[in-house]
Amino acid sequence: MPQLTDKRAPNAFRKTAQTYTSGAKTLPQPYFVSPEVFNAEREQIFSKQWICVGHQSQIEKAGDYFVPEVAGESLIIARDQKQSIHGFYNVCRHRGTRLCEVASGSSPAIQCPYHAWTYGLDGRLLGAPSMDLVPGFEKADFSLHAVNLRLWEGFIFVSLSDASKPLEQVFAPLAGKFAHWNLPSLRPARRIEYKVEANWKLIFENYSECYHCPLVHPALSKVSPSDSAANDLLEGPFLGGFMSIAKGQSLTMSGKTCALSVGGIGEEDHARVFYYSVFPNMLLSLHPDYVMVHLIWPQSPGRTRIACDWYFHPEAERAEEPRFNPEDAVAFWDMTNKQDWHVCELSQQGIASRAYEPGPYSPRESIPAAWDREYLRQLR
Amino acid sequence: MPQLTDKRAPNAFRKTAQTYTSGAKTLPQPYFVSPEVFNAEREQIFSKQWICVGHQSQIEKAGDYFVPEVAGESLIIARDQKQSIHGFYNVCRHRGTRLCEVASGSSPAIQCPYHAWTYGLDGRLLGAPSMDLVPGFEKADFSLHAVNLRLWEGFIFVSLSDASKPLEQVFAPLAGKFAHWNLPSLRPARRIEYKVEANWKLIFENYSECYHCPLVHPALSKVSPSDSAANDLLEGPFLGGFMSIAKGQSLTMSGKTCALSVGGIGEEDHARVFYYSVFPNMLLSLHPDYVMVHLIWPQSPGRTRIACDWYFHPEAERAEEPRFNPEDAVAFWDMTNKQDWHVCELSQQGIASRAYEPGPYSPRESIPAAWDREYLRQLR
Amino acid sequence: MPQLTDKRAPNAFRKTAQTYTSGAKTLPQPYFVSPEVFNAEREQIFSKQWICVGHQSQIEKAGDYFVPEVAGESLIIARDQKQSIHGFYNVCRHRGTRLCEVASGSSPAIQCPYHAWTYGLDGRLLGAPSMDLVPGFEKADFSLHAVNLRLWEGFIFVSLSDASKPLEQVFAPLAGKFAHWNLPSLRPARRIEYKVEANWKLIFENYSECYHCPLVHPALSKVSPSDSAANDLLEGPFLGGFMSIAKGQSLTMSGKTCALSVGGIGEEDHARVFYYSVFPNMLLSLHPDYVMVHLIWPQSPGRTRIACDWYFHPEAERAEEPRFNPEDAVAFWDMTNKQDWHVCELSQQGIASRAYEPGPYSPRESIPAAWDREYLRQLR
Repeated sequence: MPQLTDKRAPNAFRKTAQTYTSGAKTLPQPYFVSPEVFNAEREQIFSKQWICVGHQSQIEKAGDYFVPEVAGESLIIARDQKQSIHGFYNVCRHRGTRLCEVASGSSPAIQCPYHAWTYGLDGRLLGAPSMDLVPGFEKADFSLHAVNLRLWEGFIFVSLSDASKPLEQVFAPLAGKFAHWNLPSLRPARRIEYKVEANWKLIFENYSECYHCPLVHPALSKVSPSDSAANDLLEGPFLGGFMSIAKGQSLTMSGKTCALSVGGIGEEDHARVFYYSVFPNMLLSLHPDYVMVHLIWPQSPGRTRIACDWYFHPEAERAEEPRFNPEDAVAFWDMTNKQDWHVCELSQQGIASRAYEPGPYSPRESIPAAWDREYLRQLR
Repeated sequence: MPQLTDKRAPNAFRKTAQTYTSGAKTLPQPYFVSPEVFNAEREQIFSKQWICVGHQSQIEKAGDYFVPEVAGESLIIARDQKQSIHGFYNVCRHRGTRLCEVASGSSPAIQCPYHAWTYGLDGRLLGAPSMDLVPGFEKADFSLHAVNLRLWEGFIFVSLSDASKPLEQVFAPLAGKFAHWNLPSLRPARRIEYKVEANWKLIFENYSECYHCPLVHPALSKVSPSDSAANDLLEGPFLGGFMSIAKGQSLTMSGKTCALSVGGIGEEDHARVFYYSVFPNMLLSLHPDYVMVHLIWPQSPGRTRIACDWYFHPEAERAEEPRFNPEDAVAFWDMTNKQDWHVCELSQQGIASRAYEPGPYSPRESIPAAWDREYLRQLR
Repeated sequence: MPQLTDKRAPNAFRKTAQTYTSGAKTLPQPYFVSPEVFNAEREQIFSKQWICVGHQSQIEKAGDYFVPEVAGESLIIARDQKQSIHGFYNVCRHRGTRLCEVASGSSPAIQCPYHAWTYGLDGRLLGAPSMDLVPGFEKADFSLHAVNLRLWEGFIFVSLSDASKPLEQVFAPLAGKFAHWNLPSLRPARRIEYKVEANWKLIFENYSECYHCPLVHPALSKVSPSDSAANDLLEGPFLGGFMSIAKGQSLTMSGKTCALSVGGIGEEDHARVFYYSVFPNMLLSLHPDYVMVHLIWPQSPGRTRIACDWYFHPEAERAEEPRFNPEDAVAFWDMTNKQDWHVCELSQQGIASRAYEPGPYSPRESIPAAWDREYLRQLR
């Protein structure tokens, strides 16, 4: 009989976390189903770490904004008239009304739709009808609440905590590593959003190994052999390496290159695809002809929203050769993504059983094991 | 950075209630999102106060009944053969089966659809097959469980508590105030039900000020200036006053009067609309040509059901001049209602953020502030 | 005023259980609405008792399997090459993935869809790619987790507990009782699944009396008088007896026999239908021409899934006389089932009221009262 995990023991998962150190086995059940663990993750990880919310190319012009949700919080990310990028909570300082209803847009100012309080794109309160009659009311006291915001390789990161380590320090190990791919200048061609009925950590564990590729991804395995992984980041918040692509092929439906090379990548790297996970919510997949980025948004212990973007060289559309065909890449990975989400959902279902117990990782699952270790360090 | 409200602190909201007395700021977050507050409201307010469930004109004839839900309880409100109006829990005394399934109807008696136990419209058990074989069984012991019921100006109020103050005493401050509108004799022409994804208190706060009217209700503001409010009930369970209507106009889509004047209201009041909130679940809007009543039904911290009825003079339909056109008023307010519900929903979303903190009421929001004070008094 | 039941008092229901012994009244409210009671039932009853999951005819050939859910657990019930029937948790021993996605099927082995670990139909791990590289890894340590499984009269029972009394001992009181109906050799013709918004115990209480039949089942009552019940199992986990069928009639839409007699039942029993409940999840209805079995699957305090199967003589289809017409029985009981589920749902609604209090069972409800007593014994 299986050793039954008592789901209701209030701090059961903490004890397990302390005694689980080998990394050779999958995480215990509560990490995947417990609302308490989920709340701890939201508090300890998603409200404290640097979280990728998008790319600077999404708000190219002054006045552009978009509205991501981080740790349950709706935020406004806006470019002001001086080209500075700011992040705010999407909450009016008057009666708390949500200010921006749409996912993205462009506007010279942010006006509350309820009582017309109006803020600049730098967050300062510019106008508030009748409030000048209130003794002691100072507009300067009612700026929008800001979140910390930094750029890394053109990607926008926010932190809801003032106590987080500086982004530059956190990302120091990656300095220069991706310079060849020209990430800051790339342009997105397409976004697909997925709702997956699985814990967010299963998405990372799935991304981090190709032991499952022969059965789950027959098309991918044909072009990029499942045993060709060569990892170079083996421990810590950044994990991954490259896999081979068959000579002259590309990870597209047609098997052909679908766009201008994203950057000045070397000859050797034209037959490689690099896969890296950036803790805690980004998957970075660097192909010769495009870059795919997954942003992972936990919704509940058993539900995850995933936004997948495909980025290309800014001149790709104008190039005559190779012909720009982004859907060739999008369709290939949309198919592959769905194959992955399906097995993640099956894992979520099985792990919820009282019969589940941590199982042994194979030698080809060393990166998932390293990711689990980093996760446990960050949760503590 | 915002001061974070800990949603999970069990009695956080009680402490806030004790220290929150100024009335100059909006209520703290837990009042809008906490299930504990919602349960306390259900217990302390909706199960103890007099709650309006409808108007006597809904059950004109003996045998007529309707089935409202108060504080999660399905009730039967019925007119018996002697023209008395009674209120009962919708629960059979045998095995607890719900007796009436439809929202309203007419019947000489109430028969349980399971085992045919039958009750009179006064609640007495009339028949129960085979129960005469049970030693000591007395039909008189198995009447339907009654709720307290009183009329005020033709409106039916119930109280689930035997300890509530007499309705006559509670409503004494309003004695004679609405006599001109002939409320007991009005007839309903139309009901619209709304589901709003916002806390029920946001509905009251929204109704109690017109600071939001210029931006939210452009059509209304044209006919009834948003700064024309003159309040005469400024503190307590009944709050409000009148606003001006432009000369010769009416709050209808066409701008014209849509029915016979509801009563013997004076010349002056023909250019006024009176708005009163009746704690805790009624909004009473008295126009020259119709009366609009909102009944507010909290469903959860973030969800409210609202029933809106339009009442007219009993002879309105038969009058030649002005022509009876109730849809002219209904359409106007259906549009205006939806504009209000939308900003209430945006407020609910923003208030749920960790960045929300009570904001300052403007001088034009003195009635919402008074309503909040009354609410806090009643909750305690 | 009703005596209010405090739904939130943590162990209120346990106290009630101890003081509730007469059996003359319905169960108190918490038994029908409390998540704590529901969890206790899942733990004390559905995870400890023998639970019927189906009939051996569902997996006739080696490799056949089906996937029932017991106490929230997905199980695999499979017939192996040696014709033995096994039961397993539907959970891979590697990373916990759910193995079988479909409700039933046929396969020579069970392969995990994620990383291709492969198990025999007896549960033994046959293959696990790359795991031979892991020092100390032994396939024998990673068989599927088994559940206890036994047959009774051709029906498959499982127990999730190793401490449950042997099935043979539990069912000893029924030894030989149903021999005439040839239950092991019957064949299913049809299954209908129902979702009922009512507590599972209301289904049993409903099944156990015909006091409700005149009002709820007019068609049934015409063929089988509602006062003809003669019960022979009056206390304990098996309860019920027979009712008369009008001479020459059958419980079918047409009123005619719809199939070959299921077995060697005596002359007298051709005018009888036998109704027995088998604690805790089986209803066994033995007609002259078919056997109907309801399996009851509690989903939550207010929701129950019910699978209803109609079984016939294995030669029924080939018989010339009487002509095989299973839909004649299925349609009759589908109508009757739905009439029952409806009143059960009304009871669930009424019982959730604060006005509900246990009501008196009539003399014609002695079997529901006995069922309640057995339930309370098993819960303790």
